[in-house]
Amino acid sequence: MTVKYQEKPLKIVGTRPLRPDGVDKVTGRARYAADYNLPGQLIGKVLRSPHAHARIKSIDTSKAAALPGVKALVTRDDFADMPVEYAASGELTINFRDVTRNMMAREKVFYDGHPVAAVAATSASIAREALKLIKVEYEVLPHVIDVLEAMKPDAPLLHEHQFTDGVTPKPDKPSNVAKRMVFALGSLEEGFKQADLVIEREFNTKPVHQGYIEPQACVASYTEDGQVELWTGTQGHFVFRAQLAKVLQMDVSKIRVTATELGGGFGGKNNIYNEPLAIALSRKSHRPVKMVMTREEVFRATGPTSGANVKIKMGCTRDGRITAADAELNFQAGAFAGSSVGMASMCTFTRYDLDNVRVVGNDVTVNRPKVAAYRAPGAPIAVFGVESVIDEMARKLGIDPIDFRLKNAAKEGTQTYYGPTLGPIGFVETLNRAKAHPNYRLPLGPDQGRGIATGFWFNIGKETSSTVHVNEDGTVTLIIGIVDVAGGTRATMAMMVAEEFGIDYDKVRPVVGDTSALGFNFITAGSRGTFAGGMAAVLAARDAMEKLCRRVARIRDVPPEAVAWKDGRAQPAEGSGTQFKPMSLEEIAREAGRTGGTISGHSEINAEGAGPGFGTHIADVEVDRETGSIKILRYTIVQDVGKAIHPAYVEGQFEGGAVQGIGWALNEEYVYGADGVLQNPGFLDYRVPVASDVPFIDSVIVEVPNPNHPYGVRGCGEVPIIAPMAAISNAVENAIGVRLREQPMSPPRVLKAIEAAALATTQD
Amino acid sequence: MTVKYQEKPLKIVGTRPLRPDGVDKVTGRARYAADYNLPGQLIGKVLRSPHAHARIKSIDTSKAAALPGVKALVTRDDFADMPVEYAASGELTINFRDVTRNMMAREKVFYDGHPVAAVAATSASIAREALKLIKVEYEVLPHVIDVLEAMKPDAPLLHEHQFTDGVTPKPDKPSNVAKRMVFALGSLEEGFKQADLVIEREFNTKPVHQGYIEPQACVASYTEDGQVELWTGTQGHFVFRAQLAKVLQMDVSKIRVTATELGGGFGGKNNIYNEPLAIALSRKSHRPVKMVMTREEVFRATGPTSGANVKIKMGCTRDGRITAADAELNFQAGAFAGSSVGMASMCTFTRYDLDNVRVVGNDVTVNRPKVAAYRAPGAPIAVFGVESVIDEMARKLGIDPIDFRLKNAAKEGTQTYYGPTLGPIGFVETLNRAKAHPNYRLPLGPDQGRGIATGFWFNIGKETSSTVHVNEDGTVTLIIGIVDVAGGTRATMAMMVAEEFGIDYDKVRPVVGDTSALGFNFITAGSRGTFAGGMAAVLAARDAMEKLCRRVARIRDVPPEAVAWKDGRAQPAEGSGTQFKPMSLEEIAREAGRTGGTISGHSEINAEGAGPGFGTHIADVEVDRETGSIKILRYTIVQDVGKAIHPAYVEGQFEGGAVQGIGWALNEEYVYGADGVLQNPGFLDYRVPVASDVPFIDSVIVEVPNPNHPYGVRGCGEVPIIAPMAAISNAVENAIGVRLREQPMSPPRVLKAIEAAALATTQD
Repeated sequence: MTVKYQEKPLKIVGTRPLRPDGVDKVTGRARYAADYNLPGQLIGKVLRSPHAHARIKSIDTSKAAALPGVKALVTRDDFADMPVEYAASGELTINFRDVTRNMMAREKVFYDGHPVAAVAATSASIAREALKLIKVEYEVLPHVIDVLEAMKPDAPLLHEHQFTDGVTPKPDKPSNVAKRMVFALGSLEEGFKQADLVIEREFNTKPVHQGYIEPQACVASYTEDGQVELWTGTQGHFVFRAQLAKVLQMDVSKIRVTATELGGGFGGKNNIYNEPLAIALSRKSHRPVKMVMTREEVFRATGPTSGANVKIKMGCTRDGRITAADAELNFQAGAFAGSSVGMASMCTFTRYDLDNVRVVGNDVTVNRPKVAAYRAPGAPIAVFGVESVIDEMARKLGIDPIDFRLKNAAKEGTQTYYGPTLGPIGFVETLNRAKAHPNYRLPLGPDQGRGIATGFWFNIGKETSSTVHVNEDGTVTLIIGIVDVAGGTRATMAMMVAEEFGIDYDKVRPVVGDTSALGFNFITAGSRGTFAGGMAAVLAARDAMEKLCRRVARIRDVPPEAVAWKDGRAQPAEGSGTQFKPMSLEEIAREAGRTGGTISGHSEINAEGAGPGFGTHIADVEVDRETGSIKILRYTIVQDVGKAIHPAYVEGQFEGGAVQGIGWALNEEYVYGADGVLQNPGFLDYRVPVASDVPFIDSVIVEVPNPNHPYGVRGCGEVPIIAPMAAISNAVENAIGVRLREQPMSPPRVLKAIEAAALATTQD
Repeated sequence: MTVKYQEKPLKIVGTRPLRPDGVDKVTGRARYAADYNLPGQLIGKVLRSPHAHARIKSIDTSKAAALPGVKALVTRDDFADMPVEYAASGELTINFRDVTRNMMAREKVFYDGHPVAAVAATSASIAREALKLIKVEYEVLPHVIDVLEAMKPDAPLLHEHQFTDGVTPKPDKPSNVAKRMVFALGSLEEGFKQADLVIEREFNTKPVHQGYIEPQACVASYTEDGQVELWTGTQGHFVFRAQLAKVLQMDVSKIRVTATELGGGFGGKNNIYNEPLAIALSRKSHRPVKMVMTREEVFRATGPTSGANVKIKMGCTRDGRITAADAELNFQAGAFAGSSVGMASMCTFTRYDLDNVRVVGNDVTVNRPKVAAYRAPGAPIAVFGVESVIDEMARKLGIDPIDFRLKNAAKEGTQTYYGPTLGPIGFVETLNRAKAHPNYRLPLGPDQGRGIATGFWFNIGKETSSTVHVNEDGTVTLIIGIVDVAGGTRATMAMMVAEEFGIDYDKVRPVVGDTSALGFNFITAGSRGTFAGGMAAVLAARDAMEKLCRRVARIRDVPPEAVAWKDGRAQPAEGSGTQFKPMSLEEIAREAGRTGGTISGHSEINAEGAGPGFGTHIADVEVDRETGSIKILRYTIVQDVGKAIHPAYVEGQFEGGAVQGIGWALNEEYVYGADGVLQNPGFLDYRVPVASDVPFIDSVIVEVPNPNHPYGVRGCGEVPIIAPMAAISNAVENAIGVRLREQPMSPPRVLKAIEAAALATTQD
């Protein structure tokens, strides 16, 4: 369902109150999963593969089991094998055969860090000691790490049963290419024929990690009558419940999951890792089991985003009209199929109004941890290529890069190459506002450059439910099923509900309910929280308001239709001709017990009508030609969010996305040795941006309301990470005339590129 | 609202499945309040008054505050004084001025054990050490312990501001009699005129404790932005929340209370004790605070039931028709007004169809802990007197005691002296079934006797809410707001919901929601759980079924009215003339995400139409004339419960109530010294029944459906404790010809009575 946008005067939406979780986070009172402890709890630890690819010949746990203090051990034998089965409605589209194998290796290990066994003991040190006593016999197999290598016909093969999907005729030989997908519109041939300028380039990016501060942690209790309670850091406790029910072959109703306070997710906490192991260990040991990953485990065994190879070929007319756009995206999926290449494909060109497009996406298994979503999954990778090529085109044609984009910009009515026609969107507005921004005209010094890039994200809706309780004193408790992944979800929901009721923000207490408190809610991902969660919360509030009015009709003895909710009170409806003394929320609440019982409002919806978000970024950089180091001088984000419920938190999303994009562009990368072992599984060697890497970020919020949300919300979290790689790369080219098509643009790579360019110039 | 009873074939209701909390309780996995721990938690301890009555001249906490490890101290100065204010709708009718003073003494201490200060420290031993360093200067005042003493005009006065309520003209002198209430019907004068036999007797009972195994415990966290989380053992987390909001002057929405697994309550866990102190200590210390009472604290400072003095005068005709019934009930309220004398007054004679009645109840403050409810609050005390007098009448007139009661029994249409006219009830059925029971005809040996007594309890409804979630796999999660006080509430709710849906019991997972999960629910008390909670759960299930049918109408493209829920499936409605393939719960659930979102059902009601419960008890005893010891030979309970949803748990209620009644009758009592200090605050000296004290208990369930409940439920928990004192006393009289009018009938008291009777006989 959708709820239509209605413009109205706002008292709370658009202001900047404190978030309900803020104080707890700064005082240390917020309870993350690792802060939970149950009586009699054991500590679980995981034995992981030291090999990138190997057959497991045998696992001997007998010595470990005999160690005093060890209470349970699990291996592949403790989990049922699953058929190739995709999740039902409301769950993530995942293959449970793979989920089972990723959480605990069966026939083979597929990456350095792949779980092989898990142990629960009375202390962490005993558990670690026990891991050393487990004997695993491996037959080491050749491995493949690089995506292009993996696509070669003679590459080491991960999955003997995997035949490329999406290819006709059906291949007769298994392949590491799990799936090939093609999106197309018009005729590429025609398009390139019309082109005055054709540019074809190849780009490569490295996997990067979501970099959440809180490692995965959970506490599980499986009781003797088969009931599970689980506290875990997750972006979607309902989806975790669904997946756990599946892999543990349990009734959904027998599992209760509490989403603890989350120390960052960014897509990386949509997947079960330790949870099924902890439950299985609890089942065997008859004790609660706590498992907390080390940072090394997080790097070695949880999903980073894909590393990728991207080929872009585009043609345009002399005056800058794009006539054809072709892309090939080759994405590492990690050990099991299912990268975000599909979403990346759809985002590749969807900022432009194009007639002739093709995007081919390949989902490729390699001997790395299974990838996970990472903020606007895949889009930054594809967009890095496209926006680089567009930048090159614009520069070649001497057209201002914003003007070039304006000439081709998608707008209401643009037909996308992946299906839908775009509704009212604010892309052109972001380009115009960027062009008019003072930062776009600031003078630049030597070795300084400015780059432009843009981003698009669908934003999504999906299943969501919410409940609003009117308490006895007229304060309101709001239950949401949207995990607050740290962006202020609770604040924005409470603001919309307070706005609806016409009461103070402070009077609404938002609570993330556990899986028993609400019906199914999809994960917090895809920038759906404020859109879908807000819609559900608003509907729950309206349901309560309707009941409040009916209650007042009974109390005041007037017809129900004569009562309307306005300005925080039940009042005579306009035009009803009825007169009665209005009642405030507090007055009605005080009488609720006596007039029919407590008043709550509920909503369970599949939120539809998500409004796409677009953004334009301006990056200014300075390149040190001696060291190859890139300094970001300033960074400007102009983005259409539909409506900023809480502008400060929207700015926070802008800034956070940009910073993560800056890290991706400049320093972050997974480094594997020839042995397929990860060499930098820690924040010492995997360099995320620190405060001194990050400039002041200017945020410009554009508000073109989404017609399908009561407050016009689109969502805002994904778009900001899409453009930085391209914008910074374009700025570097602008600064020193060298274009980097490999990420990260770390000093050695920049130096190498400068040297190569100098050499090319010399050779010319 | 009420939901009408509908007779229908039952598959689950009436069977005896395992309770969902059963296994956890026997394995030790169930988490009681004391099992909860938060990071950084402190331990709170309470300094208690050593005096029965004293003015607090000063409290010096400086030395205690200086003790290393002490993080916070609170005294009267940390709590706002409250006006005489009674709770609003939906809360317990309590006086917050008194609540504030009972949780922490202000001007005076009123009983041995009255809290005077509380401390939070990093360990229990430091906290205890700190208590010793607190200097309290008292001015000791004369005290009064006995209810009749306290009623005397010159008795030591507890509350200078307390003038007897309910007396005209308004008294000009304060009194320990807080309230006098009178219930009357017809004319006593007329009634006694018609009597051939008039008997007038006086009875005395001692306070007894609810004897729950789990002492009061809680963990509280007050965060820096003024949000409270509380885990506590309570019979009503919503009521606790309401009371805490009041005494701490907070918004209700800022307090979240989780009702932990409960180790017994029986009325004793309806009141806040440590909770406000723990929150205040947490607020001051900026740390979570855990407080667990010792057994001694439980005895000294939590509410037992009232000790009482009861005067009964009744008249009847020669053929056993009662013509007049007069009672005076003088109840100890403890330190603050508010005993259950009102409810006791209404239960005194309400088993009989009487024309001329008067009951006077006096609520009297004494220097004891404030009383709390105890299973059928007050009724056993009054009924002990009435049923003793009736027994005496029947014996004097040579009428079988059951026949005597049958002659006077209340039935549908009986006008009660406190207001309502009785609807369909099963009292006569219980008397007939008792009379027909083989136990009623078993021969008795020397010094053995048989006693009959009966009980009545209103049963109640009140505010209740419930939610049912249909999970993705068609299993069901049921949230209830009724705390499961150990009687199988979760099982019975799940059974009714499974019966409604037509699915297996095992597929419904009942969960007691915290205060954020549901709208307000009244405490679990007054035998409302299965009645009101069941009604709410059934309505929530029906709401979900209606939505399921609407969803199927959309899927099958038929009109909504053509779909009906039957036998676990959405089927063509009878007479609709429409045909379509029925869909099971599982099938609809699997499609829910795609067809509009998850499906949940909700209900928020004020449950009305509670059906009164009646029971008849047969006690067989043997008296040891040498030691005065009474042995219960066998015990038979016949009770109308309307409908036994889970007969085994109904029998459990019968047995539990009877055992508590046996304890009250035989051994339990509070012993105070002349100094007003409790001398037996522990299970060593306060003797609850042990296994060897308890005979086999025969339970006979009578089912006269309550017309105002979908399954005919009345409630069953209170009635079984009402009759035992009287039945056993009547049996003792039958055994040895000596009538005991003082409880408990402990060996010394029995011996004394035997000796007094012998002396009386000698003197004759």
